[in-house]
Amino acid sequence: MSSHPVIEFTSSSSWAMIEDKFSPFAKETLAKLIKFQQEEVWPALRVAHAQLPDGEARWKTVIPIVADLKKRARQLGLWNLFLSKTHYPQHGVDLTNLEYAVMAEILGRGGHFASEIVNCSAPDTGNMEVLARYGSPEQQKKWLLPLLNGEIRSSFAMTERFVASSDATNIRTSIRQEGNEIVINGHKWWISGAGDPRCAVHLVLGKSDPNNSDRYQQQSIVIVPANAPGVKIVRPMKVFGYDDAPEGHCEIIYDNVRVPLSNLILGWGKGFEIIQGRLGPGRIHHCMRSIGAAQSALDLMLSRVTDPARKTFGKYLYEHGTVVADIAKSRAEIESARLLVLSAAIQIDKYKAKGALKEIGIAKFVVPSMALQVVDRAMQSFGAEGVSQDQALAATWAGLRTLRYADGPDAVHIQQIGQRELKRAPEVTRRLEQIRVKEKGLFAKYGVKSHL
Amino acid sequence: MSSHPVIEFTSSSSWAMIEDKFSPFAKETLAKLIKFQQEEVWPALRVAHAQLPDGEARWKTVIPIVADLKKRARQLGLWNLFLSKTHYPQHGVDLTNLEYAVMAEILGRGGHFASEIVNCSAPDTGNMEVLARYGSPEQQKKWLLPLLNGEIRSSFAMTERFVASSDATNIRTSIRQEGNEIVINGHKWWISGAGDPRCAVHLVLGKSDPNNSDRYQQQSIVIVPANAPGVKIVRPMKVFGYDDAPEGHCEIIYDNVRVPLSNLILGWGKGFEIIQGRLGPGRIHHCMRSIGAAQSALDLMLSRVTDPARKTFGKYLYEHGTVVADIAKSRAEIESARLLVLSAAIQIDKYKAKGALKEIGIAKFVVPSMALQVVDRAMQSFGAEGVSQDQALAATWAGLRTLRYADGPDAVHIQQIGQRELKRAPEVTRRLEQIRVKEKGLFAKYGVKSHL
Amino acid sequence: MSSHPVIEFTSSSSWAMIEDKFSPFAKETLAKLIKFQQEEVWPALRVAHAQLPDGEARWKTVIPIVADLKKRARQLGLWNLFLSKTHYPQHGVDLTNLEYAVMAEILGRGGHFASEIVNCSAPDTGNMEVLARYGSPEQQKKWLLPLLNGEIRSSFAMTERFVASSDATNIRTSIRQEGNEIVINGHKWWISGAGDPRCAVHLVLGKSDPNNSDRYQQQSIVIVPANAPGVKIVRPMKVFGYDDAPEGHCEIIYDNVRVPLSNLILGWGKGFEIIQGRLGPGRIHHCMRSIGAAQSALDLMLSRVTDPARKTFGKYLYEHGTVVADIAKSRAEIESARLLVLSAAIQIDKYKAKGALKEIGIAKFVVPSMALQVVDRAMQSFGAEGVSQDQALAATWAGLRTLRYADGPDAVHIQQIGQRELKRAPEVTRRLEQIRVKEKGLFAKYGVKSHL
Amino acid sequence: MSSHPVIEFTSSSSWAMIEDKFSPFAKETLAKLIKFQQEEVWPALRVAHAQLPDGEARWKTVIPIVADLKKRARQLGLWNLFLSKTHYPQHGVDLTNLEYAVMAEILGRGGHFASEIVNCSAPDTGNMEVLARYGSPEQQKKWLLPLLNGEIRSSFAMTERFVASSDATNIRTSIRQEGNEIVINGHKWWISGAGDPRCAVHLVLGKSDPNNSDRYQQQSIVIVPANAPGVKIVRPMKVFGYDDAPEGHCEIIYDNVRVPLSNLILGWGKGFEIIQGRLGPGRIHHCMRSIGAAQSALDLMLSRVTDPARKTFGKYLYEHGTVVADIAKSRAEIESARLLVLSAAIQIDKYKAKGALKEIGIAKFVVPSMALQVVDRAMQSFGAEGVSQDQALAATWAGLRTLRYADGPDAVHIQQIGQRELKRAPEVTRRLEQIRVKEKGLFAKYGVKSHL
Repeated sequence: MSSHPVIEFTSSSSWAMIEDKFSPFAKETLAKLIKFQQEEVWPALRVAHAQLPDGEARWKTVIPIVADLKKRARQLGLWNLFLSKTHYPQHGVDLTNLEYAVMAEILGRGGHFASEIVNCSAPDTGNMEVLARYGSPEQQKKWLLPLLNGEIRSSFAMTERFVASSDATNIRTSIRQEGNEIVINGHKWWISGAGDPRCAVHLVLGKSDPNNSDRYQQQSIVIVPANAPGVKIVRPMKVFGYDDAPEGHCEIIYDNVRVPLSNLILGWGKGFEIIQGRLGPGRIHHCMRSIGAAQSALDLMLSRVTDPARKTFGKYLYEHGTVVADIAKSRAEIESARLLVLSAAIQIDKYKAKGALKEIGIAKFVVPSMALQVVDRAMQSFGAEGVSQDQALAATWAGLRTLRYADGPDAVHIQQIGQRELKRAPEVTRRLEQIRVKEKGLFAKYGVKSHL
Repeated sequence: MSSHPVIEFTSSSSWAMIEDKFSPFAKETLAKLIKFQQEEVWPALRVAHAQLPDGEARWKTVIPIVADLKKRARQLGLWNLFLSKTHYPQHGVDLTNLEYAVMAEILGRGGHFASEIVNCSAPDTGNMEVLARYGSPEQQKKWLLPLLNGEIRSSFAMTERFVASSDATNIRTSIRQEGNEIVINGHKWWISGAGDPRCAVHLVLGKSDPNNSDRYQQQSIVIVPANAPGVKIVRPMKVFGYDDAPEGHCEIIYDNVRVPLSNLILGWGKGFEIIQGRLGPGRIHHCMRSIGAAQSALDLMLSRVTDPARKTFGKYLYEHGTVVADIAKSRAEIESARLLVLSAAIQIDKYKAKGALKEIGIAKFVVPSMALQVVDRAMQSFGAEGVSQDQALAATWAGLRTLRYADGPDAVHIQQIGQRELKRAPEVTRRLEQIRVKEKGLFAKYGVKSHL
Repeated sequence: MSSHPVIEFTSSSSWAMIEDKFSPFAKETLAKLIKFQQEEVWPALRVAHAQLPDGEARWKTVIPIVADLKKRARQLGLWNLFLSKTHYPQHGVDLTNLEYAVMAEILGRGGHFASEIVNCSAPDTGNMEVLARYGSPEQQKKWLLPLLNGEIRSSFAMTERFVASSDATNIRTSIRQEGNEIVINGHKWWISGAGDPRCAVHLVLGKSDPNNSDRYQQQSIVIVPANAPGVKIVRPMKVFGYDDAPEGHCEIIYDNVRVPLSNLILGWGKGFEIIQGRLGPGRIHHCMRSIGAAQSALDLMLSRVTDPARKTFGKYLYEHGTVVADIAKSRAEIESARLLVLSAAIQIDKYKAKGALKEIGIAKFVVPSMALQVVDRAMQSFGAEGVSQDQALAATWAGLRTLRYADGPDAVHIQQIGQRELKRAPEVTRRLEQIRVKEKGLFAKYGVKSHL
Repeated sequence: MSSHPVIEFTSSSSWAMIEDKFSPFAKETLAKLIKFQQEEVWPALRVAHAQLPDGEARWKTVIPIVADLKKRARQLGLWNLFLSKTHYPQHGVDLTNLEYAVMAEILGRGGHFASEIVNCSAPDTGNMEVLARYGSPEQQKKWLLPLLNGEIRSSFAMTERFVASSDATNIRTSIRQEGNEIVINGHKWWISGAGDPRCAVHLVLGKSDPNNSDRYQQQSIVIVPANAPGVKIVRPMKVFGYDDAPEGHCEIIYDNVRVPLSNLILGWGKGFEIIQGRLGPGRIHHCMRSIGAAQSALDLMLSRVTDPARKTFGKYLYEHGTVVADIAKSRAEIESARLLVLSAAIQIDKYKAKGALKEIGIAKFVVPSMALQVVDRAMQSFGAEGVSQDQALAATWAGLRTLRYADGPDAVHIQQIGQRELKRAPEVTRRLEQIRVKEKGLFAKYGVKSHL
């Protein structure tokens, strides 16, 4: 068998399917990434959480061990791996979507910090892509470069309170020009990353032309420095009981915030276009991280159920009830979900995100539910410890749970995939009718009576 | 149709099935309880949470609005409803298990505080039952009376760290006699209620006779005042990030704690007997509260999906995707789970907890999973808000999740029910063989050829 | 515990819940029915199947052992138990819906023949109800009496080929008056019972007034003798390969069939009213029979997995894999489904079928899927034998599968229940708003800051 | 996008993943196969069923249209595609397992006849592999060549009545040498293909050395001509109501059957080795055919739910209930199952069947359940017609159902995969412990307190 270390952490079967699509550089980078995670990042994760103080100080802390590891990652060349050289020749790394997807799975085993350490964490990744693709040279110099260098962090302010903002046309935040300035007023929440002391910039979506007859031309996106007067952080929202400090998911009021006109991205009315471009590949990165989280949970479960200290009534945990079957199902579900996402990555590499909408959509509604189930089984094997702060499982579960509505709830993706399939109906029906016509001929030719 | 207000909050179909088993007193009490919850308790829940400070102060706070409502409940006679007069003639209330089960469902809609307000919250309920049934007059006077009066609170210290303590024979805490004293040494965690400033007493399970050949005679239970020297609260454990202050679930070290010999409950080696007696009906109360939580979540969902402010793409939420089907399934699942638990309550009333083991066991593994699913669907309809601190749903979900391992993990109950069924096999097989013998005779009598 | 033999075949927990609603007559009849099934009917079932010849003769056979048992049942007074004396004082039996429901479960263990033997099998039951409720004295004398006596059998001709006839307004069969006669032209299929040599009469639904502005006044029902000229049985339809001879489910062409005007039931345009009245309680009888089928399959499974002859690799089947858990789940699912249907029966007894639409609807979509699952698990434990003609399981499964669309597909019932729930939304929302108003007051009163 | 016609019938996403592993010959053969199926085979399927008479004649019929299409397939070079040239250089076709897997999916759309027409149907395929790999030149000349030419058909007689023969050591059939002859006595059932008038040969597994201390050396396999004296076909077993004539699944008694010693395959005691070798790739062919069946069912469903003639209450079927979501789920399930099986095929191509046990095992328990679910949803959309003889769906479902126990029941594969995973536990635990050690060092280095 092939001997790349990735097999140990993912699956030999998927690797057999994609190995020949990996460049030597990608294989080498992947091996380096795995070594770094295993030897330096994963042992640091619970230290990082312990370094985070209680109370208000949580929101003013740069976690020392994370900061140290970021420097280390950059030295190792494990940095900005998400940014494809194909699309972003200047700053990108020479990796295909498929190649990065496998790395994203490895990163997903280490939770949020693992991605941050290699400067591949949301929402910075999406924001860097937006600035690299749509930003003016001045905007890039001021905001993109420090983001690429990991010196600052950023937010993307879209979701609004009291509004069904998953339909972007419902957005109420007002963005209007006054002379050389843009004035922003709005009430957002769930703005991830805005709690971080390093967060220097918000990309804010609002309505600049609410009466435009084209509903998808009404929105614009503006760069707002985090320290601009009028930017009021109301409170951190919690996900289950987690505040996800220091980044957080903040409720924010933009109260007559004023920025120079040059802070508009791409142009008036381009907001919808930008958010559409922002999503695509990011979704499968989320999915691959989820698969890493699931695989890691299964590994924890394997270790727990074979732990002699956990025997009850004289038997290992795995000898009780349906544990072996649960493990088999988890393994099968992870394998098939991984293949789905890898196939989406290949599709993106071949036909761009637009040509991979079906694959992305399917992965988007299949993977989080799969991962939740696998992590839940692992939690159950840990009893109370599984839901506590001593194991990553509960926090992982809570994070995965948000993926069932983030970037569009499951239901939206399910409906879209269903509707796509329905578009095949006319062609399928045409083919069935052709068969029926020939069938009729054959009934006649062979002189057989038909009730059809 | 019958017109009791309970129909509005539970189901007319289950009510039709049990109404004639309710006494006039129970009907009246139930109506009073519903009115009190709706008009005074449910409006107070989010106030109570807001009254809880951050940081260390969380663990030193008696929440004012909860304290006020406790007084009010007692005035109304809505107090200690869980304690059956049949079993506890002196302190009990004249309600059957069935009657209290329906009230527990109503209480379950209001989360933990709702039960506390009527002095019906775990672990106090179980501890009061233990003291009432097994306590000496002196123990009852000192600890039971103030508990019945809601003046103090209590803990039950059983689960141990680093130990598979769901098998009680694995318990490591040592309880030994030294002269007129008992000395306790052990390391517990997940001790609910021990964080509360009002918590005055722990019932501690430990091994007093580890070499006894009867593994179920090795354990004893001792009353330990919360402020005894050597009782060290290490930290609160969290459930999906929630600390459940002020009660909490604490890690505790008992370090050479000394109590008088008279603090032993029932006698040496009686620990296992006591915990067995402690469980029975309590489990179906948990189940009924879970059903109340599920029903309440479904109600929230109904309100959300018909909210005009939540329309997207011109349609109500309920007009999208599978929402109507999800609601129908939730309703059906709640109905059938409720009937299961009510049937268990009737069984307990008729044949005591021992005669209802099958019904209790089935309810125990069916209900939490059902409720988790219903609450999860409701959460999904709320998007991000559903997992946040602004709706009770996520905290409810986290609490329900712990019921899948508390008092025995699902797998244990499933195996027990399966094994019970297997005991029917010989009788079933005997009956099938009788049929086969007669069948053979009939084949012969009618002269028909058989391949069997 | 109570000692009625029903406990052995159903469940002590449901019996504890309903026992006091049973009359002495019902208890006695139930006991007699059980004894008759166990000692005479169940041993006869495979003989009956073996007495059915192959080929065309299948459709011309009155199965001798079934005929003998019908006589025996009538002697025992186990006859027409489905027909409630309350609604049909002249011919009915003194049983409530609840009481008959439990008997229907017992009958369901024995498949179709068991119901036929006590003259309680569809479609005769529904047809007898129609004739008893809506028939003229002349119609009753000619058709109802012989049906009640089990001398003839009958069909109900509603479903049409090439038409989505689950929407009754799509019906195409034409029923028109010509002088003193009614002329019927139409193409039906899935007409159960029409293959039986004893089938003497069809109740045919058609359109008599297709242009009536009230779409529910367009249909009429006419009595058609099975041997009327123009009644052409095209072929038997099969269900998963089963032809269900001798009754069958026939494709029939009514080609200019002429009957006297007196064969019209109830009056012109009353077709829809009649089919509505025909359904109600019949649906829960189907459900209870399904539960009997499921319980019986579980019993077979218990016997199989404890059979020493079926050991593999030195272990009983039940010692492998997830068998014990599967059994526990089957048991739990049967218990809760049974309670659902019994609660529907009580609801019908209290508030008529119209007041039990919710309960009937839930049972209708929950029970068949539950039973299919239980039977499928049992089949799996039998391996290949489970799907063969040597065990009843596969035929039972196929019959149950048809219940997921018969009398309205699952989806219709699910939507109706979901829509019913949505009607609760305004009241639920009103109550939630009341709580919010009081909550606001309490925040103010206690001086606590709110983010809500 | 790539334009191979396979995309229309399978999925562009899986094709993107594997296209570069297809040889030009394979691509061309695949295209030819698709055209042949669509234009000649699929229109013939219902004719073939109609050509099968009722009664005893079913078992004496060579279906004319199938015979004609076999000739045609051979002319087209679409013949014996299952036999890999790599393993069987003399008779094989130049296709990898991956390449044939995709063709097997296409064949799976057409049910059993489609495979037979290209001489790729079980049990002949497995028998040809056995004879090609283990047969003597004489055996190959006499039996393999006519099988390869499609002139005769064959059976594999393993399963025994009254015996748990999924554990091959339970086999009771006796095979013993007498002089130059072998004498066979045994009672088998579910012997597929033995009903066919063209079936000329049985490969019979029995015990030749029941006392051998190695339980896997007790069995031998012998070639038995179908017309040998003592071969008694008792009856056809049915799968649900289907007899699967003309091939059938027969109960057979081998009563003192005598064959020459040269009919022994491979040698005494080699039975277990042969059946092990027989299974591997065949299992994934079953799986791919199942995926084809599922995809074809989904296509039928798409056509049905968009059929204007099936509108009810003014709406298309797809506008009701959860149909769109059901379609989306079916699509997602098919996609991920297909990727699983293709990855197993690649694994076999790279590492032989032995190196692909995990992938084959997962596919074996995932795919049939997936396909059953997809076909069941399609059936439901057809109402009663869906379970009838007029659509292939019910027969397809019944066939798929047998795959959940054929070649080992689901439970066996699930346990094996679970146990395989458990073997990873020591290595996983070792890695976790390494992390814990480093973590401890980091807690110390950074001076952070740990509760772990």
